[in-house]
Amino acid sequence: MVWNTNLRWRLPVTCLLLQVALVVLFGVFVRYDSDADPHWIDSKMQQNSTSDLENEFYYRYPSFQDVHVMIFVGFGFLMTFLQRYGYSSVGFNFLLAAFGIQWALLMQGWFHSYDQGYIHVGVENLINADFCVGSVCVAFGAVLGKVSPVQLLIMTLFQVTLFSVNEYILLSLLEVKDAGGSMTIHTFGAYFGLTVTWILYRPSLHQSKERQSAVYHSDLFAMIGTLFLWMYWPSFNSAVSNHGDAQHRAAINTYCSLAACVLTSVALSSALHKKGKLDMVHIQNATLAGGVAVGTAAEMMLMPYGSLIVGFICGIVSTLGFVYLTPFLEARLRIQDTCGIHNLHGIPGIIGGIVGAVTASCASSDVYGVKGLAIAFGFDGFKTNWNASMQGKFQAAGIFVSLAMALVGGIIVGIILKLPFWGQPADENCFEDSVYWEMPEEPKSTVLHPEDSTLKPSEP
Amino acid sequence: MVWNTNLRWRLPVTCLLLQVALVVLFGVFVRYDSDADPHWIDSKMQQNSTSDLENEFYYRYPSFQDVHVMIFVGFGFLMTFLQRYGYSSVGFNFLLAAFGIQWALLMQGWFHSYDQGYIHVGVENLINADFCVGSVCVAFGAVLGKVSPVQLLIMTLFQVTLFSVNEYILLSLLEVKDAGGSMTIHTFGAYFGLTVTWILYRPSLHQSKERQSAVYHSDLFAMIGTLFLWMYWPSFNSAVSNHGDAQHRAAINTYCSLAACVLTSVALSSALHKKGKLDMVHIQNATLAGGVAVGTAAEMMLMPYGSLIVGFICGIVSTLGFVYLTPFLEARLRIQDTCGIHNLHGIPGIIGGIVGAVTASCASSDVYGVKGLAIAFGFDGFKTNWNASMQGKFQAAGIFVSLAMALVGGIIVGIILKLPFWGQPADENCFEDSVYWEMPEEPKSTVLHPEDSTLKPSEP
Amino acid sequence: MVWNTNLRWRLPVTCLLLQVALVVLFGVFVRYDSDADPHWIDSKMQQNSTSDLENEFYYRYPSFQDVHVMIFVGFGFLMTFLQRYGYSSVGFNFLLAAFGIQWALLMQGWFHSYDQGYIHVGVENLINADFCVGSVCVAFGAVLGKVSPVQLLIMTLFQVTLFSVNEYILLSLLEVKDAGGSMTIHTFGAYFGLTVTWILYRPSLHQSKERQSAVYHSDLFAMIGTLFLWMYWPSFNSAVSNHGDAQHRAAINTYCSLAACVLTSVALSSALHKKGKLDMVHIQNATLAGGVAVGTAAEMMLMPYGSLIVGFICGIVSTLGFVYLTPFLEARLRIQDTCGIHNLHGIPGIIGGIVGAVTASCASSDVYGVKGLAIAFGFDGFKTNWNASMQGKFQAAGIFVSLAMALVGGIIVGIILKLPFWGQPADENCFEDSVYWEMPEEPKSTVLHPEDSTLKPSEP
Repeated sequence: MVWNTNLRWRLPVTCLLLQVALVVLFGVFVRYDSDADPHWIDSKMQQNSTSDLENEFYYRYPSFQDVHVMIFVGFGFLMTFLQRYGYSSVGFNFLLAAFGIQWALLMQGWFHSYDQGYIHVGVENLINADFCVGSVCVAFGAVLGKVSPVQLLIMTLFQVTLFSVNEYILLSLLEVKDAGGSMTIHTFGAYFGLTVTWILYRPSLHQSKERQSAVYHSDLFAMIGTLFLWMYWPSFNSAVSNHGDAQHRAAINTYCSLAACVLTSVALSSALHKKGKLDMVHIQNATLAGGVAVGTAAEMMLMPYGSLIVGFICGIVSTLGFVYLTPFLEARLRIQDTCGIHNLHGIPGIIGGIVGAVTASCASSDVYGVKGLAIAFGFDGFKTNWNASMQGKFQAAGIFVSLAMALVGGIIVGIILKLPFWGQPADENCFEDSVYWEMPEEPKSTVLHPEDSTLKPSEP
Repeated sequence: MVWNTNLRWRLPVTCLLLQVALVVLFGVFVRYDSDADPHWIDSKMQQNSTSDLENEFYYRYPSFQDVHVMIFVGFGFLMTFLQRYGYSSVGFNFLLAAFGIQWALLMQGWFHSYDQGYIHVGVENLINADFCVGSVCVAFGAVLGKVSPVQLLIMTLFQVTLFSVNEYILLSLLEVKDAGGSMTIHTFGAYFGLTVTWILYRPSLHQSKERQSAVYHSDLFAMIGTLFLWMYWPSFNSAVSNHGDAQHRAAINTYCSLAACVLTSVALSSALHKKGKLDMVHIQNATLAGGVAVGTAAEMMLMPYGSLIVGFICGIVSTLGFVYLTPFLEARLRIQDTCGIHNLHGIPGIIGGIVGAVTASCASSDVYGVKGLAIAFGFDGFKTNWNASMQGKFQAAGIFVSLAMALVGGIIVGIILKLPFWGQPADENCFEDSVYWEMPEEPKSTVLHPEDSTLKPSEP
Repeated sequence: MVWNTNLRWRLPVTCLLLQVALVVLFGVFVRYDSDADPHWIDSKMQQNSTSDLENEFYYRYPSFQDVHVMIFVGFGFLMTFLQRYGYSSVGFNFLLAAFGIQWALLMQGWFHSYDQGYIHVGVENLINADFCVGSVCVAFGAVLGKVSPVQLLIMTLFQVTLFSVNEYILLSLLEVKDAGGSMTIHTFGAYFGLTVTWILYRPSLHQSKERQSAVYHSDLFAMIGTLFLWMYWPSFNSAVSNHGDAQHRAAINTYCSLAACVLTSVALSSALHKKGKLDMVHIQNATLAGGVAVGTAAEMMLMPYGSLIVGFICGIVSTLGFVYLTPFLEARLRIQDTCGIHNLHGIPGIIGGIVGAVTASCASSDVYGVKGLAIAFGFDGFKTNWNASMQGKFQAAGIFVSLAMALVGGIIVGIILKLPFWGQPADENCFEDSVYWEMPEEPKSTVLHPEDSTLKPSEP
């Protein structure tokens, strides 16, 4: 099928309309929170706080910046592995994330930071907006190469909305703990994206098969994304945890899980190749599954060895998924998952939800201390009559709610994106930057002959 | 014209002379400030401070590292978009910045940290030195590809000096606020660089036209620069703001402005192409204009929607500049602006100065609180009789001073750099690494045939 | 000689065995330290600490993340300069570091954090584990391209063990100060790696000579590594220093030393080329020598000019080493040092040890203050009868112990790695990714002709 891919009016109008709406909504609703307001000096004096460091900024800002890098460089470059889709991978990720964080500030703000008619934003809101967009980046991985930037903006608009509703149900109604977002970010994002790509199924996608693989340098660009995701994941899982020991513990657990995951990913990648060779796809992706799967439990008393076990399992499961499950999904279920997000975010996200539920239900005041337990799970507020076992059940419920929201939302959004006027590429033009980008001419002599005959050497 | 580009004696002698001079000057003048001196333990006890965290290091060091990345990776890789000038972009940026930060520590130190015969350096000095060099990196963008490393070192020597004088006039004499340097860094840097390139006008530059564009992978390298600049810009604009709410607010405002800027840059880039395609040059550059333009006002009560509006406008103005203004400047005004810094730093810098002046003149104790207003603009010191309106006027004056310093300084430095013995490349050899770099031979069979016939498979 | 390079069973079994052993050992030994344990709230209340910021996490976490980036992106990409070994450089570095940090947590834990049957890990342990692996990454540079991943895992297993013993001797028995690891990390790592590569000498390595050089884009990838190492080195040298002024001072000294080193590296690189051209190898490597050489003394009162002098000398020495010493070592001593680690880590490491010994022996209470001196060198504990001169002698002894451990350990490990069944590549297949990696097919028409004839333009 051939669609019109000239976006000259559709993309500018979409961007400008969305941005104007955001300006108006920010004008009406968004104000600084008390730690970012000049009156902070007054409240600091009232609280007899002597130190400027008590400003939330100093607790969270370094983690925020790490998360920010993960969203823009991490996800952006991870997807540059395709030989002819580097501009779009980095550029569209940039576009959707820049829109998504603004919309997320509003949506999450209405649910969580709304007071007396205003949303009050501080550094924690910035982190949560990045988190929300992280789930869109995950879904982007499933449809990568097959959608137009207009479709991506529309998907982001809806997905951020649904994410915020789902997050509100989990965190505020079910009182679930999910610091690193195994359920809210990864499970929701992955199954939402898989559902959308299932609806957008392209039976003739094999026509652009030759561009679905990597070239040598595109794989190295992708490793930039992998490594920044891998290195900063401890910050991701600890960024919004409680101050002090919880943030500290979340970082340690994530560090351990990710390290173990690398070894088992490498082991399986080699074992599943008939000559024992490693596959870059596994190294780029499966090594990260350990970070996804400790997202929920990272701030809990998972213990370092528990984290290693989670990473151990996820490296194996994720690599197996790339080798056996992705081809199966495409051939049998008509799910064309470009980046294999089912293996990196889907299954590990569900594992993470389960690990979190089990770890929570095993919590006891022996392990956490009486006060520690109350703080860790909020049992000191209106949840006074809760116990660990109840917490575990609600955690488990969170997985199913996230899956349900993802499937229903994905079907609706998928149908909207299937409309024929969003500028999507033809099947034979998928995974090709030149559809949406002005491309550089290929260099002629100069690059092929650097001992450049056009270069007149100056006299010494 | 043909110059001698063999730098064998000129570059080593320049580097070594400068570095020896720096060693001597550091020996005479530079000492640790009190927070970096072992006697800090005594002063801490005198002040009854119980916490080591009160050391300035913990307030500023994470921001410092982010700024450091912007200067070396951000600016360095942003300029690698040229197909045959990647070594020089990254390498010369590295060289000039490494020299510039040392010289800036001295120059800024004499103006701002000089006490009893010594310059006392701490982490804030390191940040300010990086800032100062940032303005040199901006100017480098205008002359990129057309100058020798010796010329760059000389330009850096003079520009850092002029920057420090201009900064002293603005911050200390005019009492201007300019946390993110819209005026001191971007306006000054851009118009200085444009004046230098105007003086160095090369009528036959079209002879190296074919190397002035990108190739596929060089554009991806440039995106590394773009994204690290974009992500860490909130740290840039907040790095030297007052502790607490001011730093916090500066980060939020910059985050908002940059996000809005991406959407309008994309919108205009598509709207201005006859087939609606995006241009990598705009995505790499115009998306950053929002960070430049909130530099002055970021720490003020610009409000989140105000930041969005600034970003909105700058994305549009900057992209229009790339499409219409840069060709006009080259054709009519003989200003050959390789990286389009006029669109990214020049105009947005001036906009930033204006936004700062307006925001400052609207400041009131209703919005800031009595104490907050005094702290934000330093109205509690010897500026007790100042008010917001006066502050606004002085802010506006800062723009004109910066422009004047840039133009006069640029002419002088341009004339010095026009001297024929600095090893500059001939017109037909511009934008070419091989003039100054030992180049690798192009690979022969191995890269073209990776199913390598020279690879003897071992027996299983 | 031809070995079997099919790793199908050897690599998976090695990875899985090691990881299972780590899980068991972590289960038996590793627990959270008190700052990462939920009981922290109780100890905080006992100490009358009002601020969550007193958690060690907030002192060290930003530095930890910077160090983490250096190990994985810094070292990983630094080694991608080889034209056909990018996958292996980044990927094997990722593998060995992920294994090494786990094993280092245990080894260093037994020596330094063992209490009542358990190792208690916190953020400082994570930093130290990264440091330990840093020394393995250094050694990897010497054998790069000539060993299999199985050999690397075995080398890591032994080297981490030896590192921990050596570190224990230096830090705990000799009471040496070595915050940035000039001796423990760089000297030990470099001479260990050089000894291993000496044992593994390959007389016919010239058969893969054509892959031992760079291509244009591989050099740009390597610059990513260089710059992240260079920028974050101040964090590396200050990460585990005492809170407050010591961390602050270590960052300043490292910043100064590295800046000076860039100018002298450039100077020598140009001076040693007959046409005055710069060599990327020097820019990528010698510019970092200044960071190595202030590793020991960075937290001491080296003074900013002292740091500049150290950087000045190391830029010269390191560049001279690349031009004259590396070919000599290969031709005469049969030491094939792929990355020239002798010039970047070996000699500068020894210089760093000497600078540290001299600086320590010059320490006085005039310069440090009475309390400052006691804190800086731990003279207030059971070292009450020590003085600066004794400290200097013990520092010097540390260099020799590190060298001895490196040589003896390197010989033993080299002999083990020489066994013929580890899957090492044949001489003619060294520096070639395709031995261990599934390679992408070279693109056909699409990349060569982006004005893509297969792209059917949609109707407007």
